[in-house]
Parts: sequence; structure tokens; C-alpha cells
Amino acid sequence: MRISDFIEKKRDGGEHTEVEIRTFITEMVRGNVPDYMVSAWLMAAFIRGLSHSETVALTMAMAESGDTVDTSRIDGITADKHSTGGVGDKTSLIIAPIVASAGIKVAKLSGRGLGITGGTVDKIASIPGCRTELSTEEFFSTVDRVGMCISAQSGNLAPADKILYALRDVTATIDSIPLIASSIMSKKLASGAECIVLDVKCGNGAFMRTEEKAAELAQVMVDIGKSSGRRMCALVTDMSTPLGLAAGNAPEVREAIDVLSGKGPRDTREICLEIAAQMMYLSGKGELGSCRSQAEIIIDSGRAKAKLGEFISAIGGDPRVIEDTSLLPTAENCVEIKSLSEGFVKDINAEMIGRAALVAGAGRETKSDAVDYAAGVILAVKPGDKVTAGDTLCRIEASDRDKLMRAEEYARAAFGISDEPLERKPLILRTVV
Amino acid sequence: MRISDFIEKKRDGGEHTEVEIRTFITEMVRGNVPDYMVSAWLMAAFIRGLSHSETVALTMAMAESGDTVDTSRIDGITADKHSTGGVGDKTSLIIAPIVASAGIKVAKLSGRGLGITGGTVDKIASIPGCRTELSTEEFFSTVDRVGMCISAQSGNLAPADKILYALRDVTATIDSIPLIASSIMSKKLASGAECIVLDVKCGNGAFMRTEEKAAELAQVMVDIGKSSGRRMCALVTDMSTPLGLAAGNAPEVREAIDVLSGKGPRDTREICLEIAAQMMYLSGKGELGSCRSQAEIIIDSGRAKAKLGEFISAIGGDPRVIEDTSLLPTAENCVEIKSLSEGFVKDINAEMIGRAALVAGAGRETKSDAVDYAAGVILAVKPGDKVTAGDTLCRIEASDRDKLMRAEEYARAAFGISDEPLERKPLILRTVV
Repeated sequence: MRISDFIEKKRDGGEHTEVEIRTFITEMVRGNVPDYMVSAWLMAAFIRGLSHSETVALTMAMAESGDTVDTSRIDGITADKHSTGGVGDKTSLIIAPIVASAGIKVAKLSGRGLGITGGTVDKIASIPGCRTELSTEEFFSTVDRVGMCISAQSGNLAPADKILYALRDVTATIDSIPLIASSIMSKKLASGAECIVLDVKCGNGAFMRTEEKAAELAQVMVDIGKSSGRRMCALVTDMSTPLGLAAGNAPEVREAIDVLSGKGPRDTREICLEIAAQMMYLSGKGELGSCRSQAEIIIDSGRAKAKLGEFISAIGGDPRVIEDTSLLPTAENCVEIKSLSEGFVKDINAEMIGRAALVAGAGRETKSDAVDYAAGVILAVKPGDKVTAGDTLCRIEASDRDKLMRAEEYARAAFGISDEPLERKPLILRTVV
Repeated sequence: MRISDFIEKKRDGGEHTEVEIRTFITEMVRGNVPDYMVSAWLMAAFIRGLSHSETVALTMAMAESGDTVDTSRIDGITADKHSTGGVGDKTSLIIAPIVASAGIKVAKLSGRGLGITGGTVDKIASIPGCRTELSTEEFFSTVDRVGMCISAQSGNLAPADKILYALRDVTATIDSIPLIASSIMSKKLASGAECIVLDVKCGNGAFMRTEEKAAELAQVMVDIGKSSGRRMCALVTDMSTPLGLAAGNAPEVREAIDVLSGKGPRDTREICLEIAAQMMYLSGKGELGSCRSQAEIIIDSGRAKAKLGEFISAIGGDPRVIEDTSLLPTAENCVEIKSLSEGFVKDINAEMIGRAALVAGAGRETKSDAVDYAAGVILAVKPGDKVTAGDTLCRIEASDRDKLMRAEEYARAAFGISDEPLERKPLILRTVV
């Protein structure tokens, strides 16, 4: 196959065969397709679209382009979850212990945060002593002994996705549902889990701005997973306001432990219970309603919290944090944002809170930035809450005073106060199967 | 301007401003835009198209991206012609002397041949002694003294076009009318002539396969030229059969000299007279009909042939060739293709004749190939001619016997014999102003 013929076919709106797509991806990973040809194809695929079978073929070819996690080494059924990323999304830290407590194996590879979206690996790294780069042996033995493990992605998981993603980022070809779906699902398929629950966020703090676009992406990803033999489900959830109260690494670990202690914000608990129940349901643990009840019991009995402690121990961390969150890093400086008027809190702009946490030091603006694990934003109110002038809206914490001041501007811009009470919107908008 | 925003605008079907296009081209030529970004934009522009004002802005930016020929150094009005390339197109060698004889200055930069399309520079180089790479001073002084000069393109004429063309060639973005038009016209505008006549070929031996596509390209190029203050005209001409009888370098020079001697094939003479008349008309030499008569007189009086001799002398060549074409390189080997049946010659496939001449050694399959100036194909018949079995259809000449045999297959495939007489089609299909 000549690569220029492959590009021409998509340019003219044609449909690639599975063999054509596999050849393209294989040759690309071997270094035989120059970047300028890849990016011409990406633009053609962006504008002309990819059919269902093309998207499946692309995802499979990308998933098989590098290392894959051999879950046949794991005894029992495996389940995984993936969130498209949002502000304050600490759900993996809560869901994995619940599901593992139900006897399902959670072998999870996770990324580091970039931009306003945090990464689970950074959150775990904020727990004193925890190591996040585990060898393959450590990873599997932890899954075997504890029932769960979350580790940083290995260097060679879906290398085709790394090449395509880097080019999409600089050629205005990011915002394409088949390309986004294949990018996410290639890594999920390479990670090997049999049951996969996706949390597709929408709203101003998410990549997909509207519920419709998020539902479309969710359906494409569910279809890809099913086409390659996985049990799939996706939730479309609202990210127009941050999840829970905390955004930032140690602050989110603190909130996760609160939720596992039967406390914490109601929305965080709700979404975690729902995703955990879906994972248990796909894994054959009974009807969805029964799985939901089991998940609640697992939290309320403290079993999930104990499971998190076991995991922290297994990867070298100090398990006492689950009973004493003051052992987590704390910031030296903080500032509170006060309400200037009386009224009802409107939607809290998730993107602005994410940006405030980022500039406070919780995230990376570029890949090589160091992270301040203590930094973050902790909301004091949620949308719809009644406030009077002078009430605290949120607290920003940071080790660096200058960063704190930069963060303040973003955090203030996130809030609006209305005279009218707010109609609360549901958090989980749709379930896509 | 962020280049990714520029790409995104075209991706979504938006229209670029002149400033945006100029910035893109300037930064690209400076090496500040990676190839993968350029090719993503090319694909978006291919699929979404470019408006008239975008195409004009692109052409101007490309024309001004490198050296330009300063025709203000030339005394009198300047005219140029350009052919989109065809098989057996030796018209520049005939037209330039006619127009120069009429007192118009022809300062022409020309390319080398690549693929089945010959280049005027290679044809001139086949004349013993002729130099084709002239210094700027030699070029202008030859135009000044002789009234005409044809030289190889300088290294830095429209460098933006070189970058874009090289990428288009490998990213399936060649066949786009705005991109083709801006590529051709950027070089023509950089070459500086005030009056420009374009010969846009269509048919199987040309880049544009249909008359409609050729007319569309012609109109876009005429509009670009006018928008930048040039006097413009384009002919759409048939290239479903080779022009004249000869294809190859020395063979075409021989035919050009024949035409300048008042002999030679009728179609070659006709197209040259028409293009020369249009150039003279645009240059203000009277009504079109009168220009046509002047052109005929210039040929028939031998003045144009003498002008070619003057030019050959000026660039170091042996001017005796204009009276004795046996001084041109001749091939050691030749083979004749005979008709296998009786009937009427159908359209002679120009692409196949071009390919036969190419593999005989007349052209370059890759840029670094050496050219056999003597090699070529000389037709013995034209479409519609009556033949009987055993009549010669064409002669192939080559210095290398192996190449001759490869060429034979292509040449044979160019001919078809029909029982029915052929209805002759006009050579000049449209005039676009």
C-alpha cells in the first residue's frame, strides 16, 4: 500500500479497510511514515470522519502497536474505569477500593495530570512514601495480593497513540470524536480489563462542552469496546461545576478518604457509587440495584477504606493517612475568596477552578513542570447554596505566595451570585450501553 | 497569529485574511512552521477550498517569498507565456522568437522536464554549445540585445512554492485548482512580465483531464494575474494527442525550426501563432486579427527563425543549426512501429507517447536522471490519417538499445486503428479572459 493512496482515499471521503489501517499504523510506529503524511491523513480523517468499522480498526491497531497488559496472569475477572478528565475528579481513588473489596480485580494504569485536568498518579504520589512507577512484577503481585493496583503508564503502551496525539495537538485535529474515542480506547484495550466503565464528562470543565457531544463520544467508545469483546458501559456526567469540594492532589486524596469514611461531598459519593455499581454489574455481581447496595455497604462498613490502606502499604506508602489525613502534605499559605454580595451561588465554573488549582501549583502547564502536592482549591460552597456578603466561597492553598496571588484571580472569576435560587441539575445525565 | 489557529480556521471552512496568509507563508519560508503543520493546512485547504481573495493572497505571498525578476530594468513592454505542460510542447521555442521579432521583450525563466512533460530548458540544452544557466547580468543583457532570453529558473524564485509543492506531492494534495493556480502563477508573477498568456492543456496527456477542469483552472489563473495588475489571457487546448509530430529534446528543436521555416506540422504552427498573437495583442500591438497576421508574416519572412539563431548565438550555441538541423544530436538506434491493420488512426494517446519518449531517455523519471538529448518519438501519422497494414505509425530514437525496447511497448499502446473515419476535434477549445 502506498501511503499517499491511503491519504487520498480519506481525502475523497472513502472508507479504509482494516488491513489498510493496520498497515498505516504499523508503518507509522516503525518510523516509515513521515509526520507530514500522518498529519495530512489526520486532517482528512478529521474533516471526512471515520466510520464505525474504521474507528474500531484504528483503535485495535493502536492498542496492539506496543505493550499490552496480559490480564490472563490475573486470577478472576478484571474491571477498569476511565474518566475523560475533569476538575476535582478523585473517583479512581474511591472506586478502585470499593470494586476490589467486592472481589473484582482492578489493574489500572493511569496518567499524570496535564493542564487543568489532574491525574490519578499525581494524587497517589502526594501520599507520603507511595511509589507510582512499579515494575510489571510488582504491579501484578499487588493486584494478586490486594485486589487492586494503580500504576503510572509504562513507556510503551499504545505508542501509535502517542505519535498521533502529539501531531493532533499541533495540527488542529484534536476535536474529532472518532480520533478522541480511538485514542482513549486504544489505551484501555491495551490495559486489558474485561469490564470497562467510562465516565464521559461534559460542560465547561470538560473536553466535551455539550451533553450531546459527550453522549456521541460515549456511544462510539462503548461500541469500540464491545466490538473487541469487552463488557462496556458509559455514564455521561456533568462537569460544568467541579466534582466535590477539593481540586488539587493532597486535597483530593483527603476528600477521597472522607468519602471512604462515609462522609465527604454528596456528589463525589454518588458518582463513585454509580460507577462502582456499573463495574460490579458488568463483572457479574448481580443486578445493578443489588450492586449499588453492595457498594454502599462496602463503603459504610469501612472495607473500602481499609482496602485503600492495604494498597498504600503495598506500594510503600504510609497507611496511617487513611485515619489521619494531616499526614498528607499541607500548604504554608492560603487565601480565602469571600462573597461580595448576598444571594445564591450560581454554577461554579469548573474550568476557572481548575485553572486556579493549576497556577497555585497543583498541576503542570508543561510536561516538565514540578507539582506542589499540597496546592489546590477547596470549595466552601456548592451551586445553589445561599450566601451573604463576606461568606467564604473557597480557600486556595499553595506553598508559593506568588502562585497563590495568580490563582486568586481565576478562583474569583469562577463564582457568580444570583438573586434567584438555582434549579439543581442532575450529576449523571445519561447511561450509555 | 498561532499557526494552529490558522489551520483550524481552514479546517472549519473559514476564510483567511490576506495578513494571515502572508504571515503563514513568511513564517514557513523562514523555517518556523514544521512540515506537519503545513501539510495539515494543505489538506484542509484541499478539502475546504480557497476563495478568490485567499488564492490571490496566497499567490502574491508566494511570489514575493524569494527573488523576483526586476523587469523595470528592461526597456519596453514584457510578455511571457506559460504552458501547463504536455507531450511534444515545443511552443516556447517558436513563440518567443516571433514575439521578440514584433518588438516585445520576452524574458523567460523556464523549468527542466520531469516525468512525461518536457522542459524548455532541456530542449535548449540539446542545441550544441547552448548554456542554460545564465547569470542575472547575462540574462538581462541578452533580453536587451536580442529581445528574448530563456534561462533556467534561479535557485530562489518563489521558494514558498518549492516547499508547498514538495509537500503536496507526498500528501495527496496536488489536484486542487486553487493550489495549482497559485503554484503556477506565483512563479509567473515573480518572473515579472506585464503580459501573460497561459496555455492550459486538457486531455490524457495533461494534468487536467477534462476541458471543464482546465477552463476552471484557466479562469482562476487569469483572475489572479489581473488582480495583481497583469494583462492576462488563457487558451484551453487539447492534449489528448501529442502536439505536432516530435516528442523529445533534439527532435522537438528540429520541429520548432521546421515551423519557423514555414513548414512543420499544422497544429504546432497554429497554436504558436495563436499564443503569439495573444501576447502581441495584450502588449498593445493592435487588434487580435492584425496581431495574428503580423505573427504569420514574421514566420513566413524568416525573421523569427533568424531571431532564434541570434538567441542561440547569444547563449554560446551554434546558430548554424537553424539552417542545418543535422547538427543536433542524433540517436544511434531507432525502431519503427507499424500498423497491424487497415483503417483510420484514432486519437494517439499523449500520455503513452510521453512515457515512450521518457523511457527512451528523453526525460527524467527522477530529478537526478541524465537526459539523452537525441532520444524521442517521432510520429509518422496524426489522428484521422488513413493507414494500411505495415504503414509506419511512429519512429522511436534512442542511444540505448534496452531503453528503445522498453519504449516500444508504450508507443505501441498509444495507437488504435478504427474502421470509421475520425471527426477532427479543434485544438484550441476556449479562450479565457
